[in-house]
Amino acid sequence: MDQTKLRALLQAVAQGEQDVDGALNVLRALPFEELDFATLDHHRALRWGFPEVVFGQGKTPAQVAGILARLAERSPRVLATRATVAHFEAAQKVVPELQYAELARCIWLDREPERVRQAGVVLAAAGTSDLPVLEEAALTLDLMGHQPRRVVDVGVAGIHRLFPHVPTLQQANVVVVFAGMEGALASVVGGLTDAPVIAVPTSVGYGASFGGLAALLAMLNSCASGVAVMNIDNGYGAGHMAALINSRIVAGR
Amino acid sequence: MDQTKLRALLQAVAQGEQDVDGALNVLRALPFEELDFATLDHHRALRWGFPEVVFGQGKTPAQVAGILARLAERSPRVLATRATVAHFEAAQKVVPELQYAELARCIWLDREPERVRQAGVVLAAAGTSDLPVLEEAALTLDLMGHQPRRVVDVGVAGIHRLFPHVPTLQQANVVVVFAGMEGALASVVGGLTDAPVIAVPTSVGYGASFGGLAALLAMLNSCASGVAVMNIDNGYGAGHMAALINSRIVAGR
Amino acid sequence: MDQTKLRALLQAVAQGEQDVDGALNVLRALPFEELDFATLDHHRALRWGFPEVVFGQGKTPAQVAGILARLAERSPRVLATRATVAHFEAAQKVVPELQYAELARCIWLDREPERVRQAGVVLAAAGTSDLPVLEEAALTLDLMGHQPRRVVDVGVAGIHRLFPHVPTLQQANVVVVFAGMEGALASVVGGLTDAPVIAVPTSVGYGASFGGLAALLAMLNSCASGVAVMNIDNGYGAGHMAALINSRIVAGR
Amino acid sequence: MDQTKLRALLQAVAQGEQDVDGALNVLRALPFEELDFATLDHHRALRWGFPEVVFGQGKTPAQVAGILARLAERSPRVLATRATVAHFEAAQKVVPELQYAELARCIWLDREPERVRQAGVVLAAAGTSDLPVLEEAALTLDLMGHQPRRVVDVGVAGIHRLFPHVPTLQQANVVVVFAGMEGALASVVGGLTDAPVIAVPTSVGYGASFGGLAALLAMLNSCASGVAVMNIDNGYGAGHMAALINSRIVAGR
Amino acid sequence: MDQTKLRALLQAVAQGEQDVDGALNVLRALPFEELDFATLDHHRALRWGFPEVVFGQGKTPAQVAGILARLAERSPRVLATRATVAHFEAAQKVVPELQYAELARCIWLDREPERVRQAGVVLAAAGTSDLPVLEEAALTLDLMGHQPRRVVDVGVAGIHRLFPHVPTLQQANVVVVFAGMEGALASVVGGLTDAPVIAVPTSVGYGASFGGLAALLAMLNSCASGVAVMNIDNGYGAGHMAALINSRIVAGR
Amino acid sequence: MDQTKLRALLQAVAQGEQDVDGALNVLRALPFEELDFATLDHHRALRWGFPEVVFGQGKTPAQVAGILARLAERSPRVLATRATVAHFEAAQKVVPELQYAELARCIWLDREPERVRQAGVVLAAAGTSDLPVLEEAALTLDLMGHQPRRVVDVGVAGIHRLFPHVPTLQQANVVVVFAGMEGALASVVGGLTDAPVIAVPTSVGYGASFGGLAALLAMLNSCASGVAVMNIDNGYGAGHMAALINSRIVAGR
Amino acid sequence: MDQTKLRALLQAVAQGEQDVDGALNVLRALPFEELDFATLDHHRALRWGFPEVVFGQGKTPAQVAGILARLAERSPRVLATRATVAHFEAAQKVVPELQYAELARCIWLDREPERVRQAGVVLAAAGTSDLPVLEEAALTLDLMGHQPRRVVDVGVAGIHRLFPHVPTLQQANVVVVFAGMEGALASVVGGLTDAPVIAVPTSVGYGASFGGLAALLAMLNSCASGVAVMNIDNGYGAGHMAALINSRIVAGR
Amino acid sequence: MDQTKLRALLQAVAQGEQDVDGALNVLRALPFEELDFATLDHHRALRWGFPEVVFGQGKTPAQVAGILARLAERSPRVLATRATVAHFEAAQKVVPELQYAELARCIWLDREPERVRQAGVVLAAAGTSDLPVLEEAALTLDLMGHQPRRVVDVGVAGIHRLFPHVPTLQQANVVVVFAGMEGALASVVGGLTDAPVIAVPTSVGYGASFGGLAALLAMLNSCASGVAVMNIDNGYGAGHMAALINSRIVAGR
Repeated sequence: MDQTKLRALLQAVAQGEQDVDGALNVLRALPFEELDFATLDHHRALRWGFPEVVFGQGKTPAQVAGILARLAERSPRVLATRATVAHFEAAQKVVPELQYAELARCIWLDREPERVRQAGVVLAAAGTSDLPVLEEAALTLDLMGHQPRRVVDVGVAGIHRLFPHVPTLQQANVVVVFAGMEGALASVVGGLTDAPVIAVPTSVGYGASFGGLAALLAMLNSCASGVAVMNIDNGYGAGHMAALINSRIVAGR
Repeated sequence: MDQTKLRALLQAVAQGEQDVDGALNVLRALPFEELDFATLDHHRALRWGFPEVVFGQGKTPAQVAGILARLAERSPRVLATRATVAHFEAAQKVVPELQYAELARCIWLDREPERVRQAGVVLAAAGTSDLPVLEEAALTLDLMGHQPRRVVDVGVAGIHRLFPHVPTLQQANVVVVFAGMEGALASVVGGLTDAPVIAVPTSVGYGASFGGLAALLAMLNSCASGVAVMNIDNGYGAGHMAALINSRIVAGR
Repeated sequence: MDQTKLRALLQAVAQGEQDVDGALNVLRALPFEELDFATLDHHRALRWGFPEVVFGQGKTPAQVAGILARLAERSPRVLATRATVAHFEAAQKVVPELQYAELARCIWLDREPERVRQAGVVLAAAGTSDLPVLEEAALTLDLMGHQPRRVVDVGVAGIHRLFPHVPTLQQANVVVVFAGMEGALASVVGGLTDAPVIAVPTSVGYGASFGGLAALLAMLNSCASGVAVMNIDNGYGAGHMAALINSRIVAGR
Repeated sequence: MDQTKLRALLQAVAQGEQDVDGALNVLRALPFEELDFATLDHHRALRWGFPEVVFGQGKTPAQVAGILARLAERSPRVLATRATVAHFEAAQKVVPELQYAELARCIWLDREPERVRQAGVVLAAAGTSDLPVLEEAALTLDLMGHQPRRVVDVGVAGIHRLFPHVPTLQQANVVVVFAGMEGALASVVGGLTDAPVIAVPTSVGYGASFGGLAALLAMLNSCASGVAVMNIDNGYGAGHMAALINSRIVAGR
Repeated sequence: MDQTKLRALLQAVAQGEQDVDGALNVLRALPFEELDFATLDHHRALRWGFPEVVFGQGKTPAQVAGILARLAERSPRVLATRATVAHFEAAQKVVPELQYAELARCIWLDREPERVRQAGVVLAAAGTSDLPVLEEAALTLDLMGHQPRRVVDVGVAGIHRLFPHVPTLQQANVVVVFAGMEGALASVVGGLTDAPVIAVPTSVGYGASFGGLAALLAMLNSCASGVAVMNIDNGYGAGHMAALINSRIVAGR
Repeated sequence: MDQTKLRALLQAVAQGEQDVDGALNVLRALPFEELDFATLDHHRALRWGFPEVVFGQGKTPAQVAGILARLAERSPRVLATRATVAHFEAAQKVVPELQYAELARCIWLDREPERVRQAGVVLAAAGTSDLPVLEEAALTLDLMGHQPRRVVDVGVAGIHRLFPHVPTLQQANVVVVFAGMEGALASVVGGLTDAPVIAVPTSVGYGASFGGLAALLAMLNSCASGVAVMNIDNGYGAGHMAALINSRIVAGR
Repeated sequence: MDQTKLRALLQAVAQGEQDVDGALNVLRALPFEELDFATLDHHRALRWGFPEVVFGQGKTPAQVAGILARLAERSPRVLATRATVAHFEAAQKVVPELQYAELARCIWLDREPERVRQAGVVLAAAGTSDLPVLEEAALTLDLMGHQPRRVVDVGVAGIHRLFPHVPTLQQANVVVVFAGMEGALASVVGGLTDAPVIAVPTSVGYGASFGGLAALLAMLNSCASGVAVMNIDNGYGAGHMAALINSRIVAGR
Repeated sequence: MDQTKLRALLQAVAQGEQDVDGALNVLRALPFEELDFATLDHHRALRWGFPEVVFGQGKTPAQVAGILARLAERSPRVLATRATVAHFEAAQKVVPELQYAELARCIWLDREPERVRQAGVVLAAAGTSDLPVLEEAALTLDLMGHQPRRVVDVGVAGIHRLFPHVPTLQQANVVVVFAGMEGALASVVGGLTDAPVIAVPTSVGYGASFGGLAALLAMLNSCASGVAVMNIDNGYGAGHMAALINSRIVAGR
């Protein structure tokens, strides 16, 4: 029931054309689905920076292009993750402004590149093979208005490489850790900082890594407090989570 | 916002004490959560025969007794599954009418035992070890107003035992199959009847049955059409599902 | 032993050419495999709308074409699932009437397209990536004489999108839910309707979705009553199951 | 190398008793392990509210009592999780002030109960069986200086029960969701709020829940953005994570 | 339809009281389930030595006692596996002749102990912990008329202990291998003999043996030809399988 | 130590050139690895019909060709399994007599095609998709001197199709069952015959069949006695096992 | 064939009572199993320090006592792992000298306690809950003649606690790491030392640790080089492995 | 803080330009990460023979080439594992000296090929399909200064082939065993030698080998003492581990 109809009903009551019991019955039967949920979506788009994220995997280039075109009409920013070059080429034909981040495998657009970005998020990757996932998170953060700091190649096999970055980790509002293989970096970082740690297992590894399962289980069982875990290779989700936390810290309450 | 308040608002509009725009604002802010969902719950209780089923596992006797006492106040029928004798003894102290079905491990009450039960549901178990799960389903069906027919000890290792029951299986509205070990009975029954088959893997078995996983996977991969699967040992769920289907068939559309 | 032989035996008894004991011995030795099972197959074909479904995966184009040609000779309807374009091209050469449903990946034929279809089945998909599985079910239903209603893009991350469809879900005879990732839609729909719900996990997802396992386990553990589960991506099976249930509801008992 | 020795070395340099090269060699050999890490531990204890959490499972009553006695000497607050009544009785003999939270299975002490607690954390549980895990988180939060708000019995099978709490969820700084079985509540809550969501799978369930694995996988695969996951039944960890996030939001940056 | 009825029908035809078409209709409707399958069961009991084996696990003492009493009435031999002392005590009260094999956890009876046993089966166990499973197989073989030869404590960690038994293994008709842990004995024996090898993984082990899964997988992947595998700890099944093979070899064809 | 050296040693003893103690020391140090194991290999080649089977998977065409050339020099029969057309083409260049069985994916040679084959083995496949595995077994049996009988397309979804073959199954010396999906055919056949049953799970299926795991677990948990299981898709192994059993039955003991 | 018989044969040859060909035939038929493998066992007992280790789990007290009594007769040292107090009490009755190590759950005896122990092995445990497994390794090492050094409570959540031990780790001949939960300590230690690292996952943890699986997978996927892994909780095995390595390093080559 | 700055600070103290307290504060804040860890890296490079190993999988040819070029500037030896021909071609353009080991899939360089290699390591592979993993280990060992001895095609199905190599296995300092399928070779070798055994499961196999999982579990559950396990197919890791052990044994302590 949209507002027009609701206003008409109330006016009918006001004008005596509709008695109270009848109006009450109408309102009681008011389908709960027609409430103004759009408000939620609207607020969300404002806060997130883009209305919806397109998951490219398993979609045809035409499908991705079509969805991005529709989103680009009503938002200054769009993002499609797990997108191939073929997705990008199809999409760019209909929205020439679109950009492609090769390492992050994302199609994106930002018509307000000058917006201020918030500091506070640190992204730490164990090895260079984890970078595609890290970059997906970094792009997500950028579009949501944050400027993450990167700390890379700090796997625990050479743990001294991590030490110069301890102050960075301790001063962060939120740290996102990316690691495959045994995923131990999440626990080590969790023990070195009081910032909340978002751990992202990556599928880097072979054999008994079982596509990232080893790192996933390790992170879930972290002996360090303050570590929560995302799905394997879920860079977008980690960036989004970090943005939600950082936004609120920056804004305070 | 309950009806009293809503009526007051509408009356204020009718009496000109509240203008339309103000009322509209109030209604737009109407928390969607306060709509009359109770209707849904009410209808459900009427149709199901009991308002809610208590899952006894992991609850203390006192908790189960407390919940059953509350439910027994407002319903002619109650059901608690996975209940121990200790649960029953505690519950019976507060609701003396309660009954205990030992094999089915259920506490139950039916104040209208004379109600007509609908035929149409057939429950088929591979072995006697599957009977506790079958009986949980049977009791659920009884309380929901159905009178299931049992076909037991018809495991596929002696498949000729199943044959006398083929007409029963073919004339059923819905068949529920209970089997552990390799769970093959679901496929065989599915091939012998056009009735929809609800397959319930049981945890009967050892070694590589992995607590019912073997039967579960077998049933999900049934080469027979018309077989859908419940969780391992989920007799209540299967009985409920069969009751929903049979009710609608009996009622027709 | 076909009917001709059986009739001859009985006539011999009637005419005194065969004594009762001899005939009894013949009948006792009657190989159980020669009983008139064809009746079963015949009835099934009539009721299902097609005699057998061809599972294309792992078969060569020539094999699929050959089987479809044989089936098309004796049935007004045929269906091959998990069929590629190569399967279709080979099959169309021998049965030019065949159609190909690209999204559903099915080859099909219906020589009686004007047949009445029964309403009552609702197909609900969480996201657009689940559509191939939904369409396989929809085509199956169509060929079996049902006209399903589609409700798409109602994933639980934006649960308000589902609400306008609640009346549809509540009035259905049977609801089929298609969802990948965490598969939560099945539980939410199960809680909103008393119709039996057939849940189909899809392989949409990545990482710890393990090819649909996460959704499968979630659906098997649904906290809502009245949810039974199919194999991952089994659109055909779900359509078939829904058709069996809906047929019986429409027919009544 | 403690400060006393370091000061002595520097004084020797200042007084010319030690030349620069010699001091340099001493400092180069300075074992990195003797640096003032205690600072880190000290800050952490101040911020967390307790110096260390005792994991009771697998420890004898005497061991738990001993550790708690030592911790209680130097801290106003202590916490032992997964503690039995036997653990508590042993511990109370040596530290009579200790309290036992039965539902949360925790031994705790707070000598500064009047401290101000911060609002902002919401704990939402699908069912009453999830309460032990929720209460472990709640007690952790309390000791760390937060006052969580509880929302219970809001499982997705009766999703309308969740709706009155949507404003609470939307206004939270951080939401922790506790759910077993299919764990769908995390996704639904994640779709209804922009607050970061910490999802805790519980081992509530049976059969194919595999001790909480079904809920764990579901939460990791959540289609809602802004959901990060803890280990199964890890109430303490979730409370700790939420405290870290809420502290920083309350403090702002 | 039993023979009496069938004879009556034929007599009616012979006497002209029943026309051929009518009789044909009766016979066509002849439920296929009433054919003389009993022959199969009868032959099987004769050949196997006992009509049916009782699986004690999950049954009450009273249930096991009742079934054994019924079986002992019509057979000279009975066998119940996975039986406890409580099962035995209940059963012995109703059938005093029953025996209990403690290591094999079996209740058994043999009223014809003098029967000739066939040689040809060799049972080889890796360690003494595997003996309960071996003895279950040995008892099964004995009751089915075979006299197995035991080779024990020949695990591959001390492979020279196996060598004195190589001639025994090579001259066997069939070898059954019992091993837990890594289950390597099956492959080694398979490489040393041309006799068919039945491999039985046992649940002996800990940690990553996962209740016998490691041995099961190893045996399924045996690099030796001529090895087939039973379920974990399935001594009865292995004994039965070996008896079927040995009987036929002894009988020749 | 070959026979020549051994003879020389003994002759030295006989001629007094070597005293007994010295010879004893030589013999005690006799490396156990130099015993006449070749006898075993020789006998095996005679009995099996070919000296060694080449597993083509993971080998280059050149490697397979090289091994086959070497084997073909000393044996009238060779067999390479899991061989591609590329393997065959490379091998045929060096051994022009070689044949390729496309469905079975095997390269083979038999220079004594007139040899008598033994009857007694029945191969039963649930569906046509299982035929490649069945044919691998059939070819193995043929080369080992057996003439298997095939029973195909007898899946349990249409169980009446199996019934005409029951006498065949009952008269067999050994039955090999091939089935994917839920693998129920093994249990059904096991219940219909007293012949030992070798069950071969195939990887036919999708979703929760997990590459044949569902069928494998089902077969391991068969409720029928007399069923032993091979690795998934292991047609060669099943054929070999059946040949070992049938050879011994035919020969008698 | 023991030496006596062999000597007799050779003497017969020397005395011309046995010709060379006959003796050759005897020797060719010499069962390879009767060679003097005892040498191997003898050497092993000398080197290991005890002839055989008794695995107590699953054995009765009487069985353990019997085996230990036999071993204690011929060896100065015995060891039984996974032994309960009941095992010990039964064993002590027959061998009063036996000792019981409660934390390590081992029965042991060392009649030569004064033997020199070799240094070089370091045992590092993440937490106090890992100590039972560490102590099992330590006792094994002691009986095998090594004196391990312990480094405990150095889990990665407080990684600075590990740093004072880095020189110890770097100077070790071999390091054994014990850790449950996420098992990250193995990787960190592996990165800090060039000594070979034996990693022992423990079953310490809960939920998604799956009984030590998480730590096991993490250790197998270690990003540090020089880490090899034992079975979960296999303290004895790790101690044995470390002893083998350390013995050889100490001895040099 | 590098040495230059540290020296400047100390000189300032020596010259009275900096008071002791101020210097103490600077030193207390001395970031622990700036200590002279390079020493560790330097020593490691000297001992290992190369500074770092490049894991080629998942890296682009350009990335691998770039890293190798940088490493080749400062080291006489480099190694890249899991490298394709494309990787090699790109790398060779920038470092023409590079070599490619096709079977081992490694790019390597050794500018000091004349260096002495240490004996003592034995590499034993069950079958020829395991050779790529063995060769990866062999190349690693060669570059680290060892000359391994190979024992191949000694799978347990023909265990007598292993016996001639028993002295080799017994005299080794360390044995590395490579096996897929059921991985039994590790246990058999472990039982035949007192040398420490490093077991490497390979992914050779199919069906229920699950990519090497069967061999991995078998090796972890080895009934032989003195066996430690690497990740599936981890030839490099095994070579590295063996090199660490052998170096120390050769050097003695």
